[in-house]
Amino acid sequence: MPVGTQGTVKTVGSEDLESLGYSLILSNTYHLSLRPGADLIESFGGLHKFMSWNGPILTDSGGYQVMSLSHMRKITEYGVAFKSHLDGSEHFMTPERSIQIQGQLGVDISMALDVCPPYPCTRDEAADAMRLTHLWAPRNLSARRDQNQSIFGIVQGGVHEDLRTESAEFITSQPFDGFAIGGVSVGEPTEMQYPVVKHTAPLLPADKPRYLMGVGHPQDILHAVAYGIDMFDCVLPTRMARHHALYTLQGRVNAMGKKWAEHDGPFDDGSVFPASQRYSAAYVRHLFKAGETLGGRIATLHNLAFFARLMSEIRDAIAGGTWPALVERYKNA
Amino acid sequence: MPVGTQGTVKTVGSEDLESLGYSLILSNTYHLSLRPGADLIESFGGLHKFMSWNGPILTDSGGYQVMSLSHMRKITEYGVAFKSHLDGSEHFMTPERSIQIQGQLGVDISMALDVCPPYPCTRDEAADAMRLTHLWAPRNLSARRDQNQSIFGIVQGGVHEDLRTESAEFITSQPFDGFAIGGVSVGEPTEMQYPVVKHTAPLLPADKPRYLMGVGHPQDILHAVAYGIDMFDCVLPTRMARHHALYTLQGRVNAMGKKWAEHDGPFDDGSVFPASQRYSAAYVRHLFKAGETLGGRIATLHNLAFFARLMSEIRDAIAGGTWPALVERYKNA
Repeated sequence: MPVGTQGTVKTVGSEDLESLGYSLILSNTYHLSLRPGADLIESFGGLHKFMSWNGPILTDSGGYQVMSLSHMRKITEYGVAFKSHLDGSEHFMTPERSIQIQGQLGVDISMALDVCPPYPCTRDEAADAMRLTHLWAPRNLSARRDQNQSIFGIVQGGVHEDLRTESAEFITSQPFDGFAIGGVSVGEPTEMQYPVVKHTAPLLPADKPRYLMGVGHPQDILHAVAYGIDMFDCVLPTRMARHHALYTLQGRVNAMGKKWAEHDGPFDDGSVFPASQRYSAAYVRHLFKAGETLGGRIATLHNLAFFARLMSEIRDAIAGGTWPALVERYKNA
Repeated sequence: MPVGTQGTVKTVGSEDLESLGYSLILSNTYHLSLRPGADLIESFGGLHKFMSWNGPILTDSGGYQVMSLSHMRKITEYGVAFKSHLDGSEHFMTPERSIQIQGQLGVDISMALDVCPPYPCTRDEAADAMRLTHLWAPRNLSARRDQNQSIFGIVQGGVHEDLRTESAEFITSQPFDGFAIGGVSVGEPTEMQYPVVKHTAPLLPADKPRYLMGVGHPQDILHAVAYGIDMFDCVLPTRMARHHALYTLQGRVNAMGKKWAEHDGPFDDGSVFPASQRYSAAYVRHLFKAGETLGGRIATLHNLAFFARLMSEIRDAIAGGTWPALVERYKNA
């Protein structure tokens, strides 16, 4: 899923996402509920119509953003009191309120409000976050008004395998439509992320979507898919693009680098992307050097094409039994 | 002509300009020669290939930008010594050098290097600028290497009708491929611009392209066309868009205005633009409010569509003898 935090995947329009072949995109409940507001979007018939996106949309619960406000929020069993990062206004987020807002946005997949502990945290903090997440899980489900709107539950438990097991057992016992692993990609090093994914992913039912939140790098995706993960969202393709970092089969490259100054071809030799098919690396470098926003746009199209192709080739490799060849192909990416 | 100062029409790609129906675009010799450099663009086979634009390109001579550097430049009969606005490096611009650079860029239409006086200026300053422009005119023509590259001459003379007459007589006596009116839209009020156009445009031969540089507002374009002008360039559609000002048949509107907050339709009621067909005014306003560059992009597409349609309807009205109806249609624009 490309990430469209504020109801837009930065620098690209819905028509671009369509031509890149994306179906599902992610948007953020926290940001949209503050601006332009859930009531406004509901009055337009939902987020699909507001942003002119005909494919499915998943929204996070807003929990991750609210928890990240640190000193501007206070968690109780009932919910989270927080202040808006925009104007300091006071709000209260509960599982019921999150599902209600996601209902107003009219999205296809809503995420349960959970408690995502930061990294690093103590084992007690991870356990407390997990218990609150479990306490809130049924409240999310009973707040659903539109039975066509899916709700995914989220497994927490930090880097502790026993907590992850306990959380997976409880969350998958609830009638969610899909299951996510949360609390990963929150600042922990890769060598701590991989064991969590390896341990937790197989605990999720294979007949429902399994979603690893906030991941990630191409290698992270390949690793997680090998353990059963089906879905990902990540800001990397779009955020990196705006900082002139482009994904290629040869690794991530800096479009500002002098080596591209006279390069009359794409950044990714031997592969074909819609964006770099038309524009040379030298031209994109020029745009970045000249401070032209078109540079970030072309780079975003490039990176989104890279990840769309990665996911497409992953599906082909699973269906065709050619997984080792795919891993080999992306080994430097 | 949309203006692509740095080899890009800000926020949009060549594929966008194509789908908007533009043929000719303008780029800037001064900016491109400093960054990325004329040698680099030449090594790519010219500006068309560098920016992936298949239609014709016109470049200005760089004169206007160089003259605008004020204390950073010095004009003599031979040429203009100036310092780069990027790094203060010293350069020398002459008619020969300008035509040579435009030849390296490989554009279809190059503009003669002229001297464009600022507004306000004394009559003596306007006359001096005109004389230097005349002195340089044949030097531009004799510097041409590629006979397929057109060169347009530029009429100067400030706001003085006798100087404009003298300049038009001299410049049109030279074997240029087209003729431009320069020194307009340099800060003078509309009530001084219109008489210059009214006086000068009819002095240009009707069997060659007549180009009013740097103009302008829809009303300015309609006025100038009525006196025989064929071509225009202006940064207004693109620059205004990035400052959330959108052209409509009802006048220029501020996309940030509260009146658009819940507007589930285009900014320009009763008309159809590619950009606003898909996105509502409320969505574009949200993008601007949220600081998303997609807002500027959609607004740019909107404004460029507005001017493309204006020029298209002008051609139709001339061919169909329906000029008065067209003027009426755009009277509030």
